[in-house]
Amino acid sequence: MALIVQKYGGTSVADPDRINAVADNVAITKRRGDDVIVVVSAMGKATDNLILLADQVSKKQSGREMDMLLTTGERQTAALLTMALHERGIEAISYTGSQVGIITDTAHRKAKILEVKGDRVRESISQGKVAVIAGFQGVSTAKEITTMGRGASDLTASALAGAMNADACEIYTDVTGVFSADPRIVPRARKLAKVHFDEMLEMAGAGSKVLAMRSVEFARNHDVPLHVRSAFTWEQGTWVSNEEPSMEDPIISGVVTDMTEAKVTVLGVPDTPGVSAALFEPLADANVNVDMIVQNTSTDGTTDISFTMPMADMAESESIVQRVAESIGATSVTHNDDIAKVSLVGAGMKSSPGIAARMFRVLADNDVNIEMISTSTIRVSVIIPAGQMELAARSLHTAFGLDSGSDYSAPLPERK
Amino acid sequence: MALIVQKYGGTSVADPDRINAVADNVAITKRRGDDVIVVVSAMGKATDNLILLADQVSKKQSGREMDMLLTTGERQTAALLTMALHERGIEAISYTGSQVGIITDTAHRKAKILEVKGDRVRESISQGKVAVIAGFQGVSTAKEITTMGRGASDLTASALAGAMNADACEIYTDVTGVFSADPRIVPRARKLAKVHFDEMLEMAGAGSKVLAMRSVEFARNHDVPLHVRSAFTWEQGTWVSNEEPSMEDPIISGVVTDMTEAKVTVLGVPDTPGVSAALFEPLADANVNVDMIVQNTSTDGTTDISFTMPMADMAESESIVQRVAESIGATSVTHNDDIAKVSLVGAGMKSSPGIAARMFRVLADNDVNIEMISTSTIRVSVIIPAGQMELAARSLHTAFGLDSGSDYSAPLPERK
Repeated sequence: MALIVQKYGGTSVADPDRINAVADNVAITKRRGDDVIVVVSAMGKATDNLILLADQVSKKQSGREMDMLLTTGERQTAALLTMALHERGIEAISYTGSQVGIITDTAHRKAKILEVKGDRVRESISQGKVAVIAGFQGVSTAKEITTMGRGASDLTASALAGAMNADACEIYTDVTGVFSADPRIVPRARKLAKVHFDEMLEMAGAGSKVLAMRSVEFARNHDVPLHVRSAFTWEQGTWVSNEEPSMEDPIISGVVTDMTEAKVTVLGVPDTPGVSAALFEPLADANVNVDMIVQNTSTDGTTDISFTMPMADMAESESIVQRVAESIGATSVTHNDDIAKVSLVGAGMKSSPGIAARMFRVLADNDVNIEMISTSTIRVSVIIPAGQMELAARSLHTAFGLDSGSDYSAPLPERK
Repeated sequence: MALIVQKYGGTSVADPDRINAVADNVAITKRRGDDVIVVVSAMGKATDNLILLADQVSKKQSGREMDMLLTTGERQTAALLTMALHERGIEAISYTGSQVGIITDTAHRKAKILEVKGDRVRESISQGKVAVIAGFQGVSTAKEITTMGRGASDLTASALAGAMNADACEIYTDVTGVFSADPRIVPRARKLAKVHFDEMLEMAGAGSKVLAMRSVEFARNHDVPLHVRSAFTWEQGTWVSNEEPSMEDPIISGVVTDMTEAKVTVLGVPDTPGVSAALFEPLADANVNVDMIVQNTSTDGTTDISFTMPMADMAESESIVQRVAESIGATSVTHNDDIAKVSLVGAGMKSSPGIAARMFRVLADNDVNIEMISTSTIRVSVIIPAGQMELAARSLHTAFGLDSGSDYSAPLPERK
């Protein structure tokens, strides 16, 4: 007998029919003999509709009040799913994030989990009940209702799975698993049977939307395997775990594409100590998520600094950068949002040198111009013109032997 | 400076435009210098829509889960109205019933208020904030979310008004006040400027839907005047208070009509001690609300017992009555749901004898057949055929000088 956490996303519970289908799946799991904790999102577009209502009465939108408003969506799903389980003869009980003791800090709309108490969940499980928990929400140390950001129901699931020592955490979503690339961009992308936590983190950082980074971190820290799968086909999905890749596994797991960033370049920066700090501290203070940073070596006593960040933060950061640039005596500031980030991610990179070089060769052969480069031990990312994104992603997918039906990887350096 | 509780019903907050209009009214009250506590219902049909969803996934509908589901509606309104107030520069904060300490018993869907703590409301008021409270809900002694029955947002308002020693409780609804009769049935009905608590209780008991009986009881027990008025016209409505009627006030306040009851008659009941108990105890156990009871004097050693109750409870009670009737040796059971209840309510009745006799005369003159009679010190109710309800209500309304434009009341016995 295992303890399974199952998380169902918004499209999986979008209407009563879907909720009934989910209830069937939970009932099957429970009748198989496993203990089950279910975490649910709001139904379909429920959260978007609530935001629309808020937009019609308020421009300021206090975080506390938005959290009061938005947490209702998940509670509705939790109650409805619990009733659907009762209908199937399964004992079940719904809980809010507050009721199960998901304690967060006081940062409304983007609260961080400080502790998961879970007493009532433990009690319900010991009574043989399925505990159905409203995702995305907690209660702050100031006893206010908080939310942990969009998509945080995954976080609720992995945090609960960690706190309860669950054997697995199943993330039911509208895709059948983690793919070697976005199938809308690379038609020959294929579903991965397994991915290492570290790879998944790099994929999330590189722009993959399948799992939020914080939920993967929680699962890795508590060593709870995640199973990403579809609530529409119920087929086996992708296991995300800390299992080390074996010799048979491909060196590269996937190509990740991201079109949501913009690039800013500060030109003619005096090459003196402290200029980088002067530039990036104010951006950090303004909560701008700076991603890649590149600084060229100085030649004439000045240098150029380029960085990328979410396009959504552009308006806010532009005035900051302009002001700082002037104060440090830089020549000018340019920005470009017509860019794409393409990344190769693979745990096998650690033991296979030359992946970056091979990546640059493939891009050069396809006349793709690289504007910025950033690497980690298991990831290489490049910034290229947005219009070349598809070409770059498909070429790399093919060159690194990721295409479905392909098992060719001879030109790659051998695994050591 | 006064402390005002304002309660806004579902139609008053049905959409963002309505919520903005309500926010304007709250802002006016606050800027006038009063402290304001606002209680809100769910938006328009929100509760009905949630019930519809529940119907699609469950027939059993556990009370606890329905309460988890339905309380979300009021919370959404509370958050949205609070944001709309912020937009107007008014400091405001929303609370759930649980957060303000509305402590109830554990009877889900029809919980009774045991205590109103109100600490956070008091604190917010002292900080100069408007407290916006989700109506209809509380938290049980078992720490579960409870609701107090449909329309219970009025109860939340009057209970909070009582606990906070408010100077007045304004009930904003979709009618402009309490009327001398239902204007859809009696076109010449007029709005009453004031009504005594006792009259309002009798009106509610007689079938008036303007205010729920429990909310009037709370207001009376804490001596908080209620002001029933419209959130669409904002005109002065009806004051419900413990002010004794003066000589100038009419003896009769209103004619109340009710088509929701059915009549059951148990024929040929042996006239022995204990038969009434044998009949009505099982109905009470099944939570059937028996209203009027009439037992004729025995002539041949048997008697007939008739009673009325909500038509909605008919199915449940029928089998109970049938079973009991057999066990006590009654001849047969008949029932009739083609009936109406018409009541005259007026605090002046206490000091004006002969109202009942005059009522029966008016009905007789109009060939209305009376099937049952029940009286209290300030109310006379009759059961008549449903088809004669309009005729009876209009005739009584005219005869007792209630028609708008009329100030005639000479044929009535003089006030003593």
